[in-house]
Amino acid sequence: MIKDQSISTFLDELASSSSTPGGGGAAAIMGALGAALASMVCNLTLGKENPEAGDVELQGALKKANALSSQLSDMSQADVDAFNGVMRAYGMAKDSGEEKAARSEAIQAALKVATDVPMACAKLAREVMDISKFVAEKGNKNAITESGIAVLVAYAALRSAALNVTINIGHIKDQAFTSDRQKQLEQVLKGSDDLLAAVNSTVKELL
Amino acid sequence: MIKDQSISTFLDELASSSSTPGGGGAAAIMGALGAALASMVCNLTLGKENPEAGDVELQGALKKANALSSQLSDMSQADVDAFNGVMRAYGMAKDSGEEKAARSEAIQAALKVATDVPMACAKLAREVMDISKFVAEKGNKNAITESGIAVLVAYAALRSAALNVTINIGHIKDQAFTSDRQKQLEQVLKGSDDLLAAVNSTVKELL
Repeated sequence: MIKDQSISTFLDELASSSSTPGGGGAAAIMGALGAALASMVCNLTLGKENPEAGDVELQGALKKANALSSQLSDMSQADVDAFNGVMRAYGMAKDSGEEKAARSEAIQAALKVATDVPMACAKLAREVMDISKFVAEKGNKNAITESGIAVLVAYAALRSAALNVTINIGHIKDQAFTSDRQKQLEQVLKGSDDLLAAVNSTVKELL
Repeated sequence: MIKDQSISTFLDELASSSSTPGGGGAAAIMGALGAALASMVCNLTLGKENPEAGDVELQGALKKANALSSQLSDMSQADVDAFNGVMRAYGMAKDSGEEKAARSEAIQAALKVATDVPMACAKLAREVMDISKFVAEKGNKNAITESGIAVLVAYAALRSAALNVTINIGHIKDQAFTSDRQKQLEQVLKGSDDLLAAVNSTVKELL
């Protein structure tokens, strides 16, 4: 699993000429970093001594942020697996007409998986942005830069995942699928610039 | 060293109520992710078989991106050390007037270090943005999303590091220092929104 690699190893593998891990895996890790920072703000707000006594909303945000960090760090591996699936399909035999058809079908199926993994990443990153807004407003003011950094990296993760959705959609022939995923993507991106600006503004006021 | 930790461990330590690692360490890792993605595009462009035969400009960009990734991943540790230095200074005895003066002096000195580490991170992240622009324009078009993701995460790193510079400057009394660092910060941020928009636009055209 990518999440079990050292940061150095992941950076080296990212930098190499191997196609995986690539931007999709990095986007998932970016989202996880944002979620972990949101958790940090929750933890610093709830306090070390008696976190159970803290605000119920903050406890909910902490639980959610912890889950998002875990899901997103797992997703870095899912992205690699999905991309490798596409590469395997492209590598299939294409001598006979039958082989060509089977290969083409496998490529299309693999591309759909490789679209839905970054789509899921985009949706989770958007959730990290929402939690970042909450912790910027309700969290410990001494950790205001952490809230600000959480939203910046979650936004970058969202936009990064969106790039991977878009490039994969471009190779998919099933128009019902592409049209549906295009709509999902518009939905998850909708308002994200305003959300980023709103959190940036809250952070700026509190700095 | 933070870069030797597994991604999971780093995320867990980030999320905890301990003040370090925090947003500054995350910002450095974000910058390193961007640099590694830029290296990946260079490597995919130069080719696996005979990278030495490739474009000299691209080889220069690869060397630079590799160095930036390494510097930025080291910087995640420097940020932790700088923050711990501030915490140690705040923890000094303050019973006598002499102790109070020594503590105050130590806090101010530590805050200057804790300003200059994210400042250096911001400058390196800006360099990652410049390389991302270069690879988006000159790199392998099959890796265009990697160039796009590199600039998104490098921008997030730049803005994140800037938040940490700003918050630390706010506690420093030496006006010559704060005014100089304010100018340096403006300089490194100057044009970064336009640079991000330009790379986003190049990526969008090639998607």
